[in-house]
Amino acid sequence: MFQPAPRTTVGGRQLNQPLNADDFALSAGFNSFMRLPIATTTEGLDACFVGVPMDNGTAYRPGPRFAPREIRSESTLIGAANPDTGAEPFASLNVADIGDVPVNLFNVANSCEMIKESYDKIIKDGCVPITMGGGHTISFPILQAIAQKHGPVGLVYINAHSDIADSVFGEKLTHNTPLKRAVDNELLDCKRVVQIGLRGTSAVANAHEHEKNLGFRMVRAKDCWYKSLTPLMAEVRQQMGEGPVYLCFDIDGLDPAYAPGTGFPEIGGLTSIQVLEIIRGCKGLNMVGFEVNEVSPIYDSSGSTSMAAGKYLFEMLCVVPGVKYAECS
Amino acid sequence: MFQPAPRTTVGGRQLNQPLNADDFALSAGFNSFMRLPIATTTEGLDACFVGVPMDNGTAYRPGPRFAPREIRSESTLIGAANPDTGAEPFASLNVADIGDVPVNLFNVANSCEMIKESYDKIIKDGCVPITMGGGHTISFPILQAIAQKHGPVGLVYINAHSDIADSVFGEKLTHNTPLKRAVDNELLDCKRVVQIGLRGTSAVANAHEHEKNLGFRMVRAKDCWYKSLTPLMAEVRQQMGEGPVYLCFDIDGLDPAYAPGTGFPEIGGLTSIQVLEIIRGCKGLNMVGFEVNEVSPIYDSSGSTSMAAGKYLFEMLCVVPGVKYAECS
Amino acid sequence: MFQPAPRTTVGGRQLNQPLNADDFALSAGFNSFMRLPIATTTEGLDACFVGVPMDNGTAYRPGPRFAPREIRSESTLIGAANPDTGAEPFASLNVADIGDVPVNLFNVANSCEMIKESYDKIIKDGCVPITMGGGHTISFPILQAIAQKHGPVGLVYINAHSDIADSVFGEKLTHNTPLKRAVDNELLDCKRVVQIGLRGTSAVANAHEHEKNLGFRMVRAKDCWYKSLTPLMAEVRQQMGEGPVYLCFDIDGLDPAYAPGTGFPEIGGLTSIQVLEIIRGCKGLNMVGFEVNEVSPIYDSSGSTSMAAGKYLFEMLCVVPGVKYAECS
Amino acid sequence: MFQPAPRTTVGGRQLNQPLNADDFALSAGFNSFMRLPIATTTEGLDACFVGVPMDNGTAYRPGPRFAPREIRSESTLIGAANPDTGAEPFASLNVADIGDVPVNLFNVANSCEMIKESYDKIIKDGCVPITMGGGHTISFPILQAIAQKHGPVGLVYINAHSDIADSVFGEKLTHNTPLKRAVDNELLDCKRVVQIGLRGTSAVANAHEHEKNLGFRMVRAKDCWYKSLTPLMAEVRQQMGEGPVYLCFDIDGLDPAYAPGTGFPEIGGLTSIQVLEIIRGCKGLNMVGFEVNEVSPIYDSSGSTSMAAGKYLFEMLCVVPGVKYAECS
Amino acid sequence: MFQPAPRTTVGGRQLNQPLNADDFALSAGFNSFMRLPIATTTEGLDACFVGVPMDNGTAYRPGPRFAPREIRSESTLIGAANPDTGAEPFASLNVADIGDVPVNLFNVANSCEMIKESYDKIIKDGCVPITMGGGHTISFPILQAIAQKHGPVGLVYINAHSDIADSVFGEKLTHNTPLKRAVDNELLDCKRVVQIGLRGTSAVANAHEHEKNLGFRMVRAKDCWYKSLTPLMAEVRQQMGEGPVYLCFDIDGLDPAYAPGTGFPEIGGLTSIQVLEIIRGCKGLNMVGFEVNEVSPIYDSSGSTSMAAGKYLFEMLCVVPGVKYAECS
Amino acid sequence: MFQPAPRTTVGGRQLNQPLNADDFALSAGFNSFMRLPIATTTEGLDACFVGVPMDNGTAYRPGPRFAPREIRSESTLIGAANPDTGAEPFASLNVADIGDVPVNLFNVANSCEMIKESYDKIIKDGCVPITMGGGHTISFPILQAIAQKHGPVGLVYINAHSDIADSVFGEKLTHNTPLKRAVDNELLDCKRVVQIGLRGTSAVANAHEHEKNLGFRMVRAKDCWYKSLTPLMAEVRQQMGEGPVYLCFDIDGLDPAYAPGTGFPEIGGLTSIQVLEIIRGCKGLNMVGFEVNEVSPIYDSSGSTSMAAGKYLFEMLCVVPGVKYAECS
Repeated sequence: MFQPAPRTTVGGRQLNQPLNADDFALSAGFNSFMRLPIATTTEGLDACFVGVPMDNGTAYRPGPRFAPREIRSESTLIGAANPDTGAEPFASLNVADIGDVPVNLFNVANSCEMIKESYDKIIKDGCVPITMGGGHTISFPILQAIAQKHGPVGLVYINAHSDIADSVFGEKLTHNTPLKRAVDNELLDCKRVVQIGLRGTSAVANAHEHEKNLGFRMVRAKDCWYKSLTPLMAEVRQQMGEGPVYLCFDIDGLDPAYAPGTGFPEIGGLTSIQVLEIIRGCKGLNMVGFEVNEVSPIYDSSGSTSMAAGKYLFEMLCVVPGVKYAECS
Repeated sequence: MFQPAPRTTVGGRQLNQPLNADDFALSAGFNSFMRLPIATTTEGLDACFVGVPMDNGTAYRPGPRFAPREIRSESTLIGAANPDTGAEPFASLNVADIGDVPVNLFNVANSCEMIKESYDKIIKDGCVPITMGGGHTISFPILQAIAQKHGPVGLVYINAHSDIADSVFGEKLTHNTPLKRAVDNELLDCKRVVQIGLRGTSAVANAHEHEKNLGFRMVRAKDCWYKSLTPLMAEVRQQMGEGPVYLCFDIDGLDPAYAPGTGFPEIGGLTSIQVLEIIRGCKGLNMVGFEVNEVSPIYDSSGSTSMAAGKYLFEMLCVVPGVKYAECS
Repeated sequence: MFQPAPRTTVGGRQLNQPLNADDFALSAGFNSFMRLPIATTTEGLDACFVGVPMDNGTAYRPGPRFAPREIRSESTLIGAANPDTGAEPFASLNVADIGDVPVNLFNVANSCEMIKESYDKIIKDGCVPITMGGGHTISFPILQAIAQKHGPVGLVYINAHSDIADSVFGEKLTHNTPLKRAVDNELLDCKRVVQIGLRGTSAVANAHEHEKNLGFRMVRAKDCWYKSLTPLMAEVRQQMGEGPVYLCFDIDGLDPAYAPGTGFPEIGGLTSIQVLEIIRGCKGLNMVGFEVNEVSPIYDSSGSTSMAAGKYLFEMLCVVPGVKYAECS
Repeated sequence: MFQPAPRTTVGGRQLNQPLNADDFALSAGFNSFMRLPIATTTEGLDACFVGVPMDNGTAYRPGPRFAPREIRSESTLIGAANPDTGAEPFASLNVADIGDVPVNLFNVANSCEMIKESYDKIIKDGCVPITMGGGHTISFPILQAIAQKHGPVGLVYINAHSDIADSVFGEKLTHNTPLKRAVDNELLDCKRVVQIGLRGTSAVANAHEHEKNLGFRMVRAKDCWYKSLTPLMAEVRQQMGEGPVYLCFDIDGLDPAYAPGTGFPEIGGLTSIQVLEIIRGCKGLNMVGFEVNEVSPIYDSSGSTSMAAGKYLFEMLCVVPGVKYAECS
Repeated sequence: MFQPAPRTTVGGRQLNQPLNADDFALSAGFNSFMRLPIATTTEGLDACFVGVPMDNGTAYRPGPRFAPREIRSESTLIGAANPDTGAEPFASLNVADIGDVPVNLFNVANSCEMIKESYDKIIKDGCVPITMGGGHTISFPILQAIAQKHGPVGLVYINAHSDIADSVFGEKLTHNTPLKRAVDNELLDCKRVVQIGLRGTSAVANAHEHEKNLGFRMVRAKDCWYKSLTPLMAEVRQQMGEGPVYLCFDIDGLDPAYAPGTGFPEIGGLTSIQVLEIIRGCKGLNMVGFEVNEVSPIYDSSGSTSMAAGKYLFEMLCVVPGVKYAECS
Repeated sequence: MFQPAPRTTVGGRQLNQPLNADDFALSAGFNSFMRLPIATTTEGLDACFVGVPMDNGTAYRPGPRFAPREIRSESTLIGAANPDTGAEPFASLNVADIGDVPVNLFNVANSCEMIKESYDKIIKDGCVPITMGGGHTISFPILQAIAQKHGPVGLVYINAHSDIADSVFGEKLTHNTPLKRAVDNELLDCKRVVQIGLRGTSAVANAHEHEKNLGFRMVRAKDCWYKSLTPLMAEVRQQMGEGPVYLCFDIDGLDPAYAPGTGFPEIGGLTSIQVLEIIRGCKGLNMVGFEVNEVSPIYDSSGSTSMAAGKYLFEMLCVVPGVKYAECS
């Protein structure tokens, strides 16, 4: 009755618009992402925001089950356009928030199946999913659906940790293992994988032999210190070529100064600027999906981590193929 | 696509149902109250939950602008039935969350007009509004709409403070003045007003002469100490008679032990049990509206205050006229 | 080298003692419970404190995985004797902290097996386990071990919720289902079960038919309001008779004012005094085990909930059979 | 220039007044207690608020060094009159905030000397000090000054702990020992001492032999459960007679539900109502000083504990001899 | 009586001094800024600290109403001299804290009038005001007073947002609009305006056409990444020339890592170092006023944001014309 | 019984190992540092972690008394090897956590004596202590023990503040004075002292004359801005030569963005990367001890500061002489 659900007509096509501060007070409204219209299918959508509120494969601090809810709440203050890059995603794409996929908080394997099944439906007509995790475990079933549709994908992977263990406690489906599952299931085009932000301790010092042998490019955080990552991203675009690419961002890729609300923080990480450069550097690639995971709101009473996650999700939308860019004076 | 929107058919009528833990994981879903279906009008609704996310008439700690959002988020864990009383509101009433009414966070007077106008629409076909405030300022425009439809109402008023000042800083519309505005505008049936939980300091010791002269019944918190309020409510039901009654609950009526997240806390207040007794004691009255206000979530990092507010809102629904009660073994 | 590990000799037997403020600064020391000596087996122990740091069967807010750690940290300030009751447990019992049992945070079923196996060892020589949970899921495997040794037990069960659902999301092992599993596996002497503190909402109003048919005694929170529970406990002691009894305390039995740090809080609950009365009322019973669960420290930044849990664990030790009571002037 | 410093003339005498919400916005102003005028001597004052911002005799959680600052900040919302009792203290007494006494945060003994010396000056002309502690250590030097002027005093002592140890770690001046020092230095009229709220654990069960032998009346918290303390206070007034009385309130006398922000909380404590009854029950006694101590603001992010402390300090002012009481309708 | 109010005599003139750690324990004292003497007029003052505790024009998170109080409290730990730059402001300027100006928390327009009127008095004799906001709304009335005295001013403007909207919700006086009001009222010398730190999303991508046309220099945050701003400030000093300059610092100019406690945070912002460089780069300019706004203490439980604000306020004092600089070895 | 205490045999020598995530769930276990075996003497140890849980010489915010406890708790997630540098400390050194040394929280002087005495024992057979403070006061007694064994030491000193005051409030043993005490007692080889990260305000601008005259190298934070400190550390290694070196890291050397949980934060500080460079730059030096102090966990509700401290303590272990480094591919 009260909440506007704005749409704009562009070239005869109706495009959903987010609410802005002049439409409706910023404290008001159902918490869809950016207060976008809620959709119940991806029909007619170019891209969608979707939540996966599950953290039952988490080894240390839990909490990402509540990340979609908190990110949505704090996404109120994101505007429709990106003056830094000129992107005006809602001027050319039809976008909605399609809500959360069903998960089973008591059973990791069952959750993974449910997620896979939901993503099959989400992407079947070409809608690009922009995912609010959830723990990192969710990346495997999402990649299953993505690769089934698009074939093995290139991967831009921002993370403090490789998360490529074979198992933990004998378990194959955890937040330490999604990359190994993806490799084992041939979901990745291994020559087109880049890991950025790796750091922290591990069981042995020579921790990345496996990835190297697979052909991954690895960029440790210490190789990013004091540097713009814009040049790196030029190389990454070369590496990725024309094929489909998935962007997976574990919020712990950021230094804890920028993202205290996460389950397994590591000092010496990427800056919020570097992650902006990585995402913006994906412009022009054949992006088929995006994901932010491991936000644990309860460990950040100021809400900074959820707010940052929302901003990054918007930046991801800005590099979905087809977004129109304005000239900025 | 994913989020169930359950309905049940009772006597040929479709009734909205809240999601429960077996429908959808408790961490999931758009944050409508109790994850009820969202409605855009009150057509066909017996009762509705509605937010008024405004706090710009607040004298000390702000924050209630975010209360509807947080109460909705934490309302996930409320179940459909009330084993203490036997109430099964969704078995006989059609209920939805209709979202937030528009407000203007920069202008109290304008907000009040907007609220009044929205409530006119909400109640015009008889839907009973259950309001998530917002600061206490909102009570005046809501009562304007209510009294315009139902005539001057009886009032069950739970609050630490009278909030019957004529003005603060020369301002007539603040969270200290809603009751005075209501009296001045003849929105109340003064003989059918009861204030419960009054306490705290004031400018003069003999603080309640005015209310007394108006014919209000005043029950100070100290008159409630160590006592069940069930007997009081028997008297209140006598006082209220058959006429329309509005229940207005400023969360600071509760002792801060039960509701730390509020803007103007006072020690020595009501217990959470006593407020349950008050609300349950309204069963059988001709209730025409309900309201919880002054929840300030940022001052309660555990979320207890928002959770409690949600439970009380559900209890209010349970005493809407027409709710069916089951036998409980 | 530095941390004293005090022992006292009583009747020729060496008894472990907790550190007190004069032994070692209260901020210092490894965080065993009450800074008791750490034991690696239960040999020679009359009772032990033990942690089960698992919460992967949790439906809403997670966090109890960290409860043993935080309860131990905050248990520093508990003294060796109980002036309210006269209990001096360390003067007659040999007690240690035996650490945490292994759990698998990614797999509920596997965790349950591991817990069962560990408790078999803990209790095999008669040591009474006093457990720091963990989510409520853990009660089932613990009761399996207990009942295997002692036969079906009487149960004093403090909880806001019955937790006797058959399944959630099709899962049999969750924190909503331990009591059903215990009943199905005949671990309980159903006529000797008492549930205290039940409240909150549920799917249907007549929520407790099942328990009633089983023969449980149910004491809803509303039947406890404004009352000492000392008389109730006299009846409970009658009900329990001579047989083995297990005390299971879900911290959400308490009102959130006393225990905000939990995953599924409900207003209108027991007071901290009433829970003291329940535990103290178990004196004289044939207690074979104790448990506090569902403490979620991250939701209580003041530490009150962990501190309270520690105090209750100590009170449980005070009613282990064989504790000596002093005359208090 | 801007901040009003109101005074009222009563019987030819100028009396300081606190700022109220209509004088100056509640968020504004230097943080003197209740935004009273600041005085630099006690000349002409009947009573004063004074801070002792020291906690270096604290055994567990520190923090009370910041209590005066936070209590002052949160005291903004206290009004000038007490409708519960009719007290209008500023209508008959001249009161100011005289700031904090000097302390040495690195040296307990030196701090105690400094405090003693300051209180000698504060009270020399009959001004009644109402003290914002500080850790409990401060009570000894304050009582030294008080007893030097008035002779041994009666003591109303609200506390979870006796704090009558002879020494901790060989130290004589700590927050565990003020009462022992007071006894040893003959500052107390031992037959006129009442301790209310005692509870918690201790090194031995028979913890209070010493106090008993001294002639103290001891009222354990468990003897207060479920009861109004108004009848107790009638007895206490008998006990105190005509002689000078000091009221010392360790905030941990309250249950942690009402005062989480303290250093050594104990479950099962007094309610905020019972402490109101105790303070109000001192009306008519020959009160010569008051004190609230052990508030540790950093452990209470909602500010409830500091707010409560402020309210109790105001209630203490209301029972200073000479306060005028209005009739309340 | 107790709190020293130090003054130093320089060239026959008495200069106020802040308290330092050796004067008075750091936890003690009324919370004037840096525990400077409190003044009631600006007579004889070269500069003053002043608070504007109002946030009722805030669109998203409220809270700056409490910023002056919290900044003052945390300013205790600032020393009198600046070893990085050699500035010893209290050796040549007479400075005081003059408290808070009156505001009306219920009415933005009225507040703005009150602020304007107060600043007229503050600056009439040449005292340089260093303002603790308050929400950004306050900049307009302050600039009104400043420009009335000094003529249109140059502006160094640190902010994530332009805050140059014409209206929000039809309102002209909000925290989104102060710059537009200043331009409309010809308070600014538009060629001498520089905005630093702009970033974040907006309604359209080409967001700054208007400012550009006005002749503002705009330095987006992305143009500051990885760079010292010392060279920029050399250019800014050129731009500002000899005319009067006002420095306005919205704390959200900083990245949220440095200032989580604010109402509308944006990732990718300035570092705390860059803001130091900007302020220090104003040395030598004809500075006529300074302001920090939009600090919202409740969103930063560690106090970092308030502490940082205090440090920046001190750095502002260090570049007031006339401050003496020492040689630093 | 349950908690593994892993050891590895290297060259016939048994070496303690930390628990890792596959040994035992990350939420489980007694909180020794990295869940290493607990030792009661340093016999056979090459290095040890040790806590000094004292903060009674702290001038502003207290809290470091709880730092060892919290750092240990959060150290769970540190792995055994350092892929950034190749260090595998547990492959060549025998390391344990020896717990906390005794301290007296009521008496600084006595605590210092106790600490000195404990460190004499710790280091007498050559074990390298890696200390978890405690307030900075502890550095003096530790250095006393170190210098007594090794002679005056070189010092790598990371700190915002010099902490070389002669006294505060006349007190010689405080957290402002450890370096002065060390100099006066000839514990330092003054030509081999480097202070890194100095900043903040002080009583006079020319604050470092004294250190300069002593021959210290001083590197202010502003000289580190925007720079890798790897080149600086090459110079520092020159400066330190072959003699014994102690590394003392006051966590406030870091910018508050990286370490909000400390008692006296200063903006414009070192990054977490720079501190990693400093510690790693000590490789090859004759390190005889390490220390992290001034972590105040209660001021950082996300735990980031304690987590960071744990990581730095591990990095310190990695540069203990004798650590084996692996090739990292």
